[in-house]
Parts: sequence; structure tokens; C-alpha cells
Amino acid sequence: MKAGILGYGNLGRGVEAAINKNEDMELVAVYTRRDPAGLKICTPGASVKHIDALADGKEDLDVLIICGGSATDLPEMTPKYAALYNVVDSFDTHANIPKHFGAVDAAAKAGGKVGLISCGWDPGMFSLNRLYAHSVLPDGRDYTFWGTGVSQGHSDAIRRIEGVLDARQYTVPVPEALERVRRGENPELTTREKHTRECYVVAEEGADLKRIENEIKTMPNYFADYDTTVTFISMEEMKEKHAGLPHGGSVIYSGETGTNGMKHVIEYSLKLDSNPEFTGSVLAAYARAVVRLNAEGVTGGKTVFDIAPAYLSPVSGEELRAHWL
Amino acid sequence: MKAGILGYGNLGRGVEAAINKNEDMELVAVYTRRDPAGLKICTPGASVKHIDALADGKEDLDVLIICGGSATDLPEMTPKYAALYNVVDSFDTHANIPKHFGAVDAAAKAGGKVGLISCGWDPGMFSLNRLYAHSVLPDGRDYTFWGTGVSQGHSDAIRRIEGVLDARQYTVPVPEALERVRRGENPELTTREKHTRECYVVAEEGADLKRIENEIKTMPNYFADYDTTVTFISMEEMKEKHAGLPHGGSVIYSGETGTNGMKHVIEYSLKLDSNPEFTGSVLAAYARAVVRLNAEGVTGGKTVFDIAPAYLSPVSGEELRAHWL
Repeated sequence: MKAGILGYGNLGRGVEAAINKNEDMELVAVYTRRDPAGLKICTPGASVKHIDALADGKEDLDVLIICGGSATDLPEMTPKYAALYNVVDSFDTHANIPKHFGAVDAAAKAGGKVGLISCGWDPGMFSLNRLYAHSVLPDGRDYTFWGTGVSQGHSDAIRRIEGVLDARQYTVPVPEALERVRRGENPELTTREKHTRECYVVAEEGADLKRIENEIKTMPNYFADYDTTVTFISMEEMKEKHAGLPHGGSVIYSGETGTNGMKHVIEYSLKLDSNPEFTGSVLAAYARAVVRLNAEGVTGGKTVFDIAPAYLSPVSGEELRAHWL
Repeated sequence: MKAGILGYGNLGRGVEAAINKNEDMELVAVYTRRDPAGLKICTPGASVKHIDALADGKEDLDVLIICGGSATDLPEMTPKYAALYNVVDSFDTHANIPKHFGAVDAAAKAGGKVGLISCGWDPGMFSLNRLYAHSVLPDGRDYTFWGTGVSQGHSDAIRRIEGVLDARQYTVPVPEALERVRRGENPELTTREKHTRECYVVAEEGADLKRIENEIKTMPNYFADYDTTVTFISMEEMKEKHAGLPHGGSVIYSGETGTNGMKHVIEYSLKLDSNPEFTGSVLAAYARAVVRLNAEGVTGGKTVFDIAPAYLSPVSGEELRAHWL
């Protein structure tokens, strides 16, 4: 399976690492909007090309994994390339998924390709677990907790404050809330009761720390609805203790069956050392599925909901039945 | 969706309870080898019929959920009825799955039906989670822990000992082993290190308790390889404290990505008040998938690996994309 990666940020590098763990996959090229000459990748033998090389659909790729941002990159890129290649993306602006799906579906159908959107862990594996749980236990409800992990969007928001040199924001689930949900209490929880936000900030020398802390804690959408702590640290400590991008979380579903109040709790949880490497691994597995489906004649837009699990695995159906059930 | 249930033991009653939680499903009839006149079911309006009514394939059913034992019932029943109806079973004799699948696949193809085998939580939801995890993180390993929960096979084995009136056996995961696996240590664990077995036994008056305890603890395959505790209790205590059939467990997968040793732990866990009601709920969801697949022209044998998650849900694709991703 010949794969290409479009975009070489954290996620692109995560996909590259994942491809190299899969023996049936080969990274052919990384495509970039930057000057290819300035980009070093980790895979010997794979090329680095300018994004324009993709334009005529003649690149020798079974699948193109598009690693761009959901705000402006993916709405343009994924439909464009879905007309030319089988593609997978990690589009995660929930409100715009139907519109994005419509555009990718039309392009992929016109081009005779498969375009799978919104892949990763949330949306992605977490969505799957919500769907499986609701389908098995229709009388119940799901809770999603994120963290402990780095939110890059929240870290970026802090960095835009005047006087801030660097910042890292951890989303942390509230232990009491988690426990109540795990016990099957089905509590009503406010935003504040579910997660706290812990911020580590490197400030310019002489900056007004009180003002920075206040600007963070009162920032609408990002922090105002949460109990937020702000800790100022040195650049050395930032580099030493906060260089990674760990994340994770839990989808917990609590449902009832029968007429005697039998309760059941289903929990799916992730503890990830590297958010982009795990997300990249999910994208690689779904890239395999997309290539296989297209080889069977399937075309159009897909999400993780549409993919039978067997398509993700290099193991044959016979083997799966004999050893994995 | 018109459903029938073949067999009305614990699992059959669990499926009935599940069907009644799904608004798009209707229980048409329960089929039994016993005298139908002697069987009371919980669903008003559904009939009770002798199994022979199924023989000519003329029952008005979209799907038949077969709730028999894996040792002798299902190997005969599932292929037989897969030729006549869409069917779902919970066949769980792992070593014989390929043979059973072959028989069901051939019969279902000949009859133009879909036959889904080995559904439930293990095999079933646990198998799915092993497959998803291995596919996403090829460099890693999975561990399955069962319990705390009642093993009916082990309880039955104790009941066959002379002098035993009733017995309940709980399978209990060893907390230290669970913790090591959750930490991503990837330990080598013997059978004894993973689970203990707790037995509650009601003995006949005057029975030789020492002999019974010894017979349990040394029973090959069932108990000899485990640390087993035996507690003798009264029939009253058995009825009061051990009437339920709780179960559950965890599939824990620990894998690595990249070249910097990034570790990721995926855990899927179940805490079930009623093993048969949860298993029945899984069977009901897959019955929906089987009916839909067959309506699209699909025929033959299937397992949970072959079913795209969207088929399990009564929610439309548009709705799923808009609100569930």
C-alpha cells in the first residue's frame, strides 16, 4: 500500500511514524506547501515534494493522508484531493461535519475514490464507542471526559496574550465526576464540574503576572467556564517538563436493561504519551480500510461509522475468525 | 423489524428484554423445544410456539435470534435455520468457530440469508476491541481480564460434585496484575497470576466438606491452575446474596509508536449487573444489522468484525454524522 502524507506538522509526523510500524504500508512521499528542499523527514527512501505535484492526480499513491487544520486547510484540501486520490482526514470542527462530508462525498464519487473524514480518537475511536454503546443499550447515556492532556488550542490561546512567551494547558477531568459516572449515577454535570484547566506559562521578564493570570481565567469559551489554575514557570522548566503532547480520556456509558433495573457501565479509555502519534496511527489504520474498500469498487464519503472493523486489519478474515474472536 | 427468539433460558429472556427496549423491534414469537403451553413469556402479544413451526421457513420473521448452548445446540441449529431465516447466535467455543462459520456461511448463502455467529461480549465486544487496538497500534499486546463475575460453567462443575446442593463461582481478576497491565508494563502473566476463583457452596447436611473443597480445588481445567477459595454457606444466603448473574471485565491493550518509545494504553471495560441481559442486548443490536444487510442484498456468514458500526444503530447516517462524531 503506497501512502502519501500532505502536511508535515505534528500530525503528519505522527502518521509517518505509524506507517513505518505497518509492514504492508509504504510512505512514498510527503507533500508540503513549504519549500521541499528545506524539509527533512524520517523515512529513508521517501521523497519530499511540493503540494503542486498532487494537482494532476498522477502521483502513484493508493491513499493520501491529509494532515491539515480543520479551520481552513481541510475544507479546501480534502474535497479537492478526494476527486483524485483515496483520502483520509482528521476534520474535527463538529458543527461543520455535515457540510464537509457533503463536499468530500460528491468529489469522491465523481472521481471514483473513497474519502474518509473526521478520523482520529475524538472524533474517531471515542465516537465509535459512543455509537456501539448506544446501539447495544438504547436506554442510557454517555459521558466523555478528556485528559489529563495538552490542549493545543488552549495553549495557543494563552500564547496570544501580551507578555506570554510560551504556555502549555492541561485539561484534567474532575476525579469526583468521573467516579460518579463510573458508579452509574448518571449525574447532571456542568462544564465546570467535569474538567479543570491547568496552565503553565512562561512570561516575559517584568510582565504583569496578575494581568496575565486574569486574562487567562476570564477568557470566554476557553477558560471562563472552568476552574482554571495558572502557574508561572521558567523557560527551562517548560522545555524540561512540558515538551510532550500527552492526552487521553474516557467515554463512559451507563445503561439499563429489562424491568428489574439491571445496570451496565461500559468504559473506553485512552492514556496516550503522544496525541499526534496515536491520532496518526488511527489515520493509518483507516487508510488501509479506504484502499481496500476502493479496490472492491466502493466510492464516496465515509466516516469511521461506515467501516467494518475487519477492513482495518492486515489479518485475513479466516485468521481473524480462528484466533481473534 | 420482526424478531423471533429460539430458546428461552437466561439468554433468551435477556434478548426478549433487549427487544423491548428497541422501538424499531418487535418480538413476534419465542420458539421452544418444550411444551409451548407450559411457557410464560414477558412480552404481551408475542406468541410461544414449538420449534417445529420454524421448519418450513414460513414464519413471518426478519431475524431469528438463536439462544442455545454452544456444545450441541448451536452447531446444529444455526446452520439449519440460517438457510431459512436471517439468524444471530452467540457461539463461544473458540476452537470450533471456523467450522461453525463454514457451515453457517454455506447455509446462509444457499438460502439468500445472513447468519451472524459468535456475538455477545466475549466473543463480541471484547473481540472488537482487541481488533481495533491491534489495527491502530500494531506494535503492542492485549490482555483480557474477566470478572468480577459469575462463571456458569464453573458453577455447574461444582454442582456435579457429590454432596453439593448449589454453587456459585466468581471469577476475580488479580488487582496487582490489572495494575501492571494498566501501567503499560506488558508483563508475562501465568493463569494463576491473572485471576482467582471464589466459590460459594451449599453442601448437603453431613457432607464431607474437606473432600468437597479438595475436589473443587484440584479439578483439572476448571480450578487446579488457579488460587481458589471455597466458602460453605446456607441455602438462604445463596438465594439472598448470590441470585444475580453479574459479570464484566477488561480488554487492555498497550502499544508503542514511533522511535522515541511513546506508549499508549487502551482499555475497554464492562461492569454488568446481568450477563444475560447485556449479552442479549448485543445480540439484538446485531440482529438489526443483519436485517439491514440482507435487505441490501448481502448474504452469507458474518461475525462482528464484518459489520460496520452504523448498521447497529437505528439512527440515520445523516444524524450520526451531524451529532455523534
